[in-house]
This record gives sequence, structure tokens and C-alpha cells, in this order.
Amino acid sequence: MLNLAGLYPPIVTAFNEDESIAYDKLESNLQKWASQPLDGVIMPGSNSEAAYMTTAERLDVIKVCADVLKPSGKRLVAGTGMETTAETIWMTQKAADLGAEAVLVIPPYFFKGSMKHDVLLAHYRAVADESPLPILVYNVPAFTGVDFAAQTLIELAAHPRIIGAKDSSATVTKMADVLAAVPDFQVFAGTGSALLPFLSIGAVGGVMALANFAAKPLRKLYEAFRAGRSEEAKNIQLSLAHINTAVTGKYGVPGLKYAMDQSGFYGGPTRRPLLPLGAEGRKDIDRLLAELDLE
Amino acid sequence: MLNLAGLYPPIVTAFNEDESIAYDKLESNLQKWASQPLDGVIMPGSNSEAAYMTTAERLDVIKVCADVLKPSGKRLVAGTGMETTAETIWMTQKAADLGAEAVLVIPPYFFKGSMKHDVLLAHYRAVADESPLPILVYNVPAFTGVDFAAQTLIELAAHPRIIGAKDSSATVTKMADVLAAVPDFQVFAGTGSALLPFLSIGAVGGVMALANFAAKPLRKLYEAFRAGRSEEAKNIQLSLAHINTAVTGKYGVPGLKYAMDQSGFYGGPTRRPLLPLGAEGRKDIDRLLAELDLE
Amino acid sequence: MLNLAGLYPPIVTAFNEDESIAYDKLESNLQKWASQPLDGVIMPGSNSEAAYMTTAERLDVIKVCADVLKPSGKRLVAGTGMETTAETIWMTQKAADLGAEAVLVIPPYFFKGSMKHDVLLAHYRAVADESPLPILVYNVPAFTGVDFAAQTLIELAAHPRIIGAKDSSATVTKMADVLAAVPDFQVFAGTGSALLPFLSIGAVGGVMALANFAAKPLRKLYEAFRAGRSEEAKNIQLSLAHINTAVTGKYGVPGLKYAMDQSGFYGGPTRRPLLPLGAEGRKDIDRLLAELDLE
Amino acid sequence: MLNLAGLYPPIVTAFNEDESIAYDKLESNLQKWASQPLDGVIMPGSNSEAAYMTTAERLDVIKVCADVLKPSGKRLVAGTGMETTAETIWMTQKAADLGAEAVLVIPPYFFKGSMKHDVLLAHYRAVADESPLPILVYNVPAFTGVDFAAQTLIELAAHPRIIGAKDSSATVTKMADVLAAVPDFQVFAGTGSALLPFLSIGAVGGVMALANFAAKPLRKLYEAFRAGRSEEAKNIQLSLAHINTAVTGKYGVPGLKYAMDQSGFYGGPTRRPLLPLGAEGRKDIDRLLAELDLE
Repeated sequence: MLNLAGLYPPIVTAFNEDESIAYDKLESNLQKWASQPLDGVIMPGSNSEAAYMTTAERLDVIKVCADVLKPSGKRLVAGTGMETTAETIWMTQKAADLGAEAVLVIPPYFFKGSMKHDVLLAHYRAVADESPLPILVYNVPAFTGVDFAAQTLIELAAHPRIIGAKDSSATVTKMADVLAAVPDFQVFAGTGSALLPFLSIGAVGGVMALANFAAKPLRKLYEAFRAGRSEEAKNIQLSLAHINTAVTGKYGVPGLKYAMDQSGFYGGPTRRPLLPLGAEGRKDIDRLLAELDLE
Repeated sequence: MLNLAGLYPPIVTAFNEDESIAYDKLESNLQKWASQPLDGVIMPGSNSEAAYMTTAERLDVIKVCADVLKPSGKRLVAGTGMETTAETIWMTQKAADLGAEAVLVIPPYFFKGSMKHDVLLAHYRAVADESPLPILVYNVPAFTGVDFAAQTLIELAAHPRIIGAKDSSATVTKMADVLAAVPDFQVFAGTGSALLPFLSIGAVGGVMALANFAAKPLRKLYEAFRAGRSEEAKNIQLSLAHINTAVTGKYGVPGLKYAMDQSGFYGGPTRRPLLPLGAEGRKDIDRLLAELDLE
Repeated sequence: MLNLAGLYPPIVTAFNEDESIAYDKLESNLQKWASQPLDGVIMPGSNSEAAYMTTAERLDVIKVCADVLKPSGKRLVAGTGMETTAETIWMTQKAADLGAEAVLVIPPYFFKGSMKHDVLLAHYRAVADESPLPILVYNVPAFTGVDFAAQTLIELAAHPRIIGAKDSSATVTKMADVLAAVPDFQVFAGTGSALLPFLSIGAVGGVMALANFAAKPLRKLYEAFRAGRSEEAKNIQLSLAHINTAVTGKYGVPGLKYAMDQSGFYGGPTRRPLLPLGAEGRKDIDRLLAELDLE
Repeated sequence: MLNLAGLYPPIVTAFNEDESIAYDKLESNLQKWASQPLDGVIMPGSNSEAAYMTTAERLDVIKVCADVLKPSGKRLVAGTGMETTAETIWMTQKAADLGAEAVLVIPPYFFKGSMKHDVLLAHYRAVADESPLPILVYNVPAFTGVDFAAQTLIELAAHPRIIGAKDSSATVTKMADVLAAVPDFQVFAGTGSALLPFLSIGAVGGVMALANFAAKPLRKLYEAFRAGRSEEAKNIQLSLAHINTAVTGKYGVPGLKYAMDQSGFYGGPTRRPLLPLGAEGRKDIDRLLAELDLE
């Protein structure tokens, strides 16, 4: 079974001021990520504004990522979840053709009230049956309104190609239930502030917006945990808490992109309806970055 | 200002067993709807599984609806909300080209936590500025996780091309606040069981899944209300309550399509991940239809 | 079966500045309510700050209400729901002894996740079995986090002493399901802005904070509806929308009490932790009252 | 500042079959808890069915706990939160008189929509100003519907008598924000499955239903963490996950009491409306206990 353990940024998509994809900026960002202590990247994911991209654009950015990352030995995990089962299968197969090593699959979420246990099992199993690649289930109720029950994840884990999950809800109690039942399931913290708590109960890594511009401290945290230096790990984790909250829940993708712009990456604008970060948000993030040790 | 007052089904999309669009079935359904006491149809909307259709398919079904309905004098209101502002504008203009008379615009909802008052105002105003057609705002928190505040609707109503709203949350208290502030805003009940309550506070009609196969009793209810026959209106409203709950919240689109199959329309399968209605659901709907007077 | 049809304020408890009960002010308010076009009062209920009163205080105010209202022929419906089944039975029997004609029973709500269908049925049936008085079920999820399913209300309605419900969630679709199944169940709108929508589907009245100081327009609305003057009813309903939102959701009991202070009643302070209405809230309510015709 | 670091059960209240308090059983339970590797007990708390006890009963059980525990050197943290500020102050002072060493204060929650930042600050500061004892804030949104923002906890931490918090929502991301701002704030995991994740980010212990009957493995987990044996800590944590979920979210207090009955303690019945655990739940807990090493 593919072992994906490690740290990954769900990378942002670089856009020009006219909202077109800035492929040159995306490539230069990818070169930088390839040189960071990361195990690969996730693209396109929530922070990539995948929901704001056409299917063709999603395929394009997967290809760019695969091509740029290949020489570096970094992994590409492609986000391939679509609203229908058929499209998700199609996109997953395309991602394999384009060079992804695994896929992260968000559930269908428009008819959220209908996405019950049986429907989710049928959907993911149908996708996994047709997938050439191992699958991570993506639980992100803040965006989908769908929150996987522990039992659903446990049953999905029985499929040989469903190897793990990213949990952005950071629900340690649920993930303890999952890992108690299926200890080899590869669980990833879905937000920077949950990395150490998740590692403590057996998660194997993190897929974190924060890793777009703070890979080094996250790696130090990860290594400190693995070496049993729990006090050091805790201190790094807490040092990252406020900036993590700022670039996820509080200011969202506009905040994340602004923080990248201030940290040597190209963040750039989002697509509308997301609006640029206001003056107060910029000041807040400036202050938090100044307190941070990114090296 | 275009007066859209009246009754509309958000029509289902007919699919073949292989999940391709069954254009012949869609056309024959449209012929039937054109002969019912309806003021037009909404397409593609939530019940059309628009979320499960490609952009090209959405344009196709708009064209089919416009072409079939034109001779009948029935209105086509096209669902044109997309995740980005730019795509929503593009789709709205296309719908106008294809013959829609108005558009129903669902908000972007992936980044639901970011869809606050200012973001929604900016999005809808940008769309309305570029729209050749009048706009209905579509509030459906059960699917989007975005629930418009009264104040947002009131401020949007100031735009000359934002003429009304469909509220599927059936929140009479909020809609009373809206109609108290902007009495000419064209409010539509978004579910069959809310029709009479909404009419009682000044709504002008309904956009209701139930109208896919129960146009006649809904029309009788509407006419009874307008004629001041409140007892008759109430009795019809209550007679429709259980079937309405069944084909919306309880069994969703699979339930709606099954009810259509039993009522002289083509319902057919849904696209996956939605699963076919189970035996219990079919029996439940059979029972409810047997109690109903659809003539 | 006792017919409670009509309009009721869930009355506020008058407190002195030191937070003790101002019995003189409560009595003078009761005299005023007795002279208004109301069918009775509810006490102690949510707006009475019952949750902030001791059991002894609740009994005291029930007695005061019963004694003052008796000569007027107005009804007293006592709020007797407690956290345990045993205490609810005890309180219900006490209320009967003190002169209440019916009781309004809020569900236990601390263990809200456990208040499922079976638990609610067992609780209410146990109370009803021991109750000397008819019972109204009180659905107020905004305060309890417990939201009755239609099916629970329908099954409770089979008990001869469970005669109706107050629904503060104003969910017209659910109440249509209830009234379709049990047409004689006495349903009351639980907030002023839902009165006309609820009447339209067969509710028999309202239990509304607004009735503390706006009984006359609410009565006019009620009479207009009953006489089939739907346009007039609608206009009154909309004229009350903004003040209703202000004294319920927006500013809560402090807002309601302030509005009473400005309308010839004694509102006075709330108990802490509720804080006095701020300057902006007072100005907002002043403006709304100035627009209102309370005669 | 009092250092409360350690492990505590929020103990259950022993009831007789007639729902009266079984003081003899409570005392024998207390003797057992005093001999377990616990740092004290919390009483009355959520699991004590405090919400189902009168004020007099709450004082009685505090006294019993203080008297029984005193010779053992174990701490008593009394739950003293009431709906009003005045009653909370009064109860807190009584608890001090009766021998408690600290208090755990649940927020007022009936008017949950009004329990905003400013109201919570004013309430807790007023209580802390009058409290003879150090205070732990109790965040338990599953029961209260009130979820403290990180900023509220951070500002409360500035009060010299507000020394920490119990977080039953197990939100590691929020607690990381709190501990990053106020590292000496004494944070406690509020559920067994969150103990290790919370310790990993700087929490000082746990207040956990599970500790009612599983103190030994929880202590081993705690010691393993403190000694840097992260793998052992993780394994114990995961071994407790399913039973923890069973005696909290899944089966609640009836489940917890049943598990105690099977583990050498007196669990006994709950007060109604809570119903006894059904056959399926008993079987489920039997199975989970059989898998567990409680020594």
C-alpha cells in the first residue's frame, strides 16, 4: 500500500488580476514548494479554489503540477471529487493519466441531506473500483455540510484502494474512533493547528493550508514529535496557532494568499465572489507573520 | 418591471438508465407542463440536478425548454448561478440568448463561511449589472449552507434588475421583514407547503417541486386564496402537506421522480450518487398519491 | 375539549432594580392586559425569564396572575415544564391548584441530544397522565436546542389531555404536516410575525411576545383574517414585522421590556446575565415604535 | 495560583429506583474513587444530572463529597453554574463554605442567542469578583448551545480567579489559540478521547466521564505522555476510544451508569426523562468492556 505519510500543502492557484490562471506564477511557486521540506502537494483542493475552476482548468493545473514536481521526487495528490459519481471516476482516471500518485476525493455535497452512510459508501466504492490510484477521503464539513461518521470511514477503509482520509474538521474524538478500528488507515490533519493532536493519536501527517508558506516550522514540529520531543513540538504548534486561524477560518483564501505574498510566494488575487483582504486583515496578518519564525 | 407572479415547477431533468439526458422525455414532459395551469418552468434548478450537469448540458436544457415552451406562452426562468461571479454573468447572458425571460440565481456556496452580507451584495450586484434579464435571488440553505439575511435581500432589492426571491427555507418571519421593507419585491414560496403561508404575507407565487406533478391542486389553492376563500385554500394546502414533505425533504429528487412516474410524467432515474428510491419509500409515496386529488 | 383559540402574551416578569420581583408592577401590568383584547396570558414562559426564577417564584407569579385575572374572565396558561418528568408533573399539579386553566410545557433540554422521539413521548405522556389540566406542547428550539418532529407532535396529539402546541420556530411546513394529520390540534404561532401564516393553515391563535404591548393591532389582524379581509390582515402583519424581530430575535427580553416601558407598561430591568439594552437598540426600538399604530 | 493539573471524573449521582438520591451508594462510590489514581472529583456536573437536581440537592451532594473526600486528600471541584449571575455567585459561595477547593462554572444557556462575548465576560467577571474559590470555565456546547470563542476565554483568563477551562467540545484548534495566548491557563480535556490530543498542546489534565470507571488506564495514559512514551500513550488512548464514545455521545448518562454497574461501582438508574439503556446498548457496552483492560 502506498505510504503517503508526511506534510502537504493544498496549494493555491495563482491567478492574474483578470482572474485567469497565472501559469508562470504557479510554476515558480511549485519550484519553491519542491525545495521545501514537504512530501508533495495537493492540487486542486479547497484552497486552490477548485470550486471556482472549470473541469478543463483542473486538468491543466494537475498536468502542470505533475510536470514540475516529477524531477523533484515530490508527490502529487490530485483533488478529483466531483458532484456525480461518473464525473468523479472520470476525473480520477484523468488525474492518473496526467501523473498524480494518489487522489483526494471530496464528497458530492449539493444534496447534502441525502449524503447518508449508504449513499457515501456506494459513491466511494464505485469510484475506488474504477480508480487506478489510491484514494484519500476528504472530510471538510465547513465547505460541504457533509460530515463523515466514524463508521462510514471505517467501512470505507475496507476497500483496498481507500487508504486514508484528510479531516479538516479536526475532530480528534471521531478520529480516535476510526484509528482504534483501522489503525493502518492513513489519517491526515486537515488544518495546521490540528497537526500535533492528530499525530498524537496515530495520524501520519497533515494536509494544511499553512504549509503553503510555513513548511519549515511544520516540519520541525513533525520531526520533534517523531523524536519524542513533545515539549518542543508543543511550542512550535502553539506558535503557529494564531496565523493558522487567520489563514483558514478567519480570513480564508484571501488571507492565505496575502500571507503568501508576504512570505516569498506568489499569492495574488482570488476569483470573485471572494473579495480581496481588507486593510484590517492585512494588518492582522502582517503582525502575526512578524511574530513567526518561518525558517 | 416584469411581473412573474404565479406558479412554477423547478422541473426535473429526464435521464436515461445510463444517466444520459433523455431529451425526448424532457420534451414530452415539457409539452405536458405547457398544458397544465402553470405560468412557466424553472430550469435548470436544484430539482433538475443542475449540480450534476455540465455547463454544456445546462445550456442544452435551457435551449430545449425555451424552444418547446415558446409556442405555449409559458415563461422560462433559467437557473444560472455558478460558483464564480464571472461564470454566473456568462451563464446569465447565455440564458438570455437562448430565450429565458428571467433568471434564478443561487449563491456561490463552496466557501459558505465567506458568503457574508458584503460578499453577497457585491456578487449579485455585479451579476445584475451585466444581466440582460431580471433576477430572482434563490435562498436554499438546505443545499447551500448560505442563508440570506433579510437585510441582504432588502439591499439587493434596490437594484432595478433584482426583482424578487425564491425562499426554499420557508422562513415566514424573515420574509415578513423583507416584504415590510420592499413590498414590491416578488417573493416566491420555495416549497409546496409554504405556498399559502407565503401568499398570506404578500408573496406572489411559488416555485415548488410539487408543481412538477400537482399543478392543478396548487392552482386551485392559489385561486382560492386570491378569491378570499381562505377555508378552501387551507384545506387544499393541508391535503398536499404529506406528499410535499415526501418529495422534498424526506425522499428528495428520487422521491419526486418516482411520484412523477406514477402521475403521468416521466420521472426516471437520477444521476448517482443519488440512489433509486427504496421499496419503503415507493410504498409510502404510492399511499400518499392514492389519497391525493390531482385533478 | 378546552378551546384556547385566541391571542396571548407570554408575559414578562416585572423586576425591581435589585432584581427582586416587583409584584406591584406585575399586578398593574396584569390589570392592563386584562383590559386589552387578549384571551389570557401565559406565565411563566420564556419571556417571563422563567429560566431565571426559582421554583417558589414561579409558583408565586402563577398565583398572582390567577388572582388578578380571575375577575376579568381572562385565561391563565401556566408554564410548567421542568427538567425532570417528576418535577414537571409536580409543577403542573401545583399550577392547577393555583388556578391555571391549562399548561404550556417546554421539554427538558439539558441533555438535548437524548431528547429523541421515544423520550419525548414518554415524558409528555407521563406528564399528561398525571395532569389535571390540558397541555400545550412548547416547541422553541432557539432556547432549547430541541426541535419536535411533526411525527412526535402527531403522536402526542392522541393523548386526550395534549390539546395543542406553541411553535416558536415558525416552521409552517412542519405545522402543515401536523395539521394535515390532526386538524383539531390547537396550534399557536409562537412569534408575532408568524401569526397570519399560521392562521392561514389552520392555527387557532398566537402566543407572542409582541402581545405584551401590541395586543390591539394583533387583534385587528386576527379579526381581519377571520372575516376574510386578507389584504388588511397582510398589511397589519407586515406593519408589525420589524418591531417583532426587534423584541424577539434581535434584542431579546431586554428589547421587549424597553418597548413595554415606552408603551404604557412596566418593562423594567431583566435579571443578569442579560444586560440592559444599549443606546443603539433603544434608538432602533424608539424609531420602530414611532412608525407603529398601537391603537 | 491553585494547580489543578490531573485527572477527574465528573461523577454520577447515585439514585434509588424511586429517583431519590442514594446517599449510601454515593458514599461508597466516593470511597472507591478516593482509592483510584484520581486527583479529585467534579460534582455536581453534567454527568451528575445536576440539571435534574434541585438547588438543595446540589448543596447536599457537595457536602457529602467534601466530607468523604477530605481524609483522602482528593480535591473537590464543585459545579456551581446557574442560570442567573446572582444564583451562580450564591452557589459558588455556598460551595466554598461546604469545602470545595475550586468551582466549574457552566454558562447560563437558556437565552443562548444572547450569550455573546460581552454578556459572558460580564457574567464570569461578576462571579469571579465575588468568588472565594478559583474558577474553571465550562464549555459544553452539546448541552448548552453556547460555544465560547477563543477570544472570550483569553479575556476571561486575565481575571486572577479564572484559572482554566474544561472543554467538552474537544476543539483542539480553538484550544491551541487559547493556549498560545495564555499558556498558563489550565485547560482540561472534557472527554476521554481528547485527553492525549489536549495534553499534546499543553492541557494539564482531563475531566472525563470515562474516569468514573476507567481511572487506571487514563492514569497510565497520562503518565506515559508525561514520560515521553508517546507510542504507549497513543495505544492506550485508542483502546479507550469506543467505550468513551459509548458512555458519552452514543448512550449518554444511562450508558455511563450501566458501564459503572458492570465495573464495580454503583451506577443505578437515571432520573426521567432519561430512559434506561436498552438491550442493544447493554450488549454493546458489555462487549466494549470485555475488550478493555481496566487495571
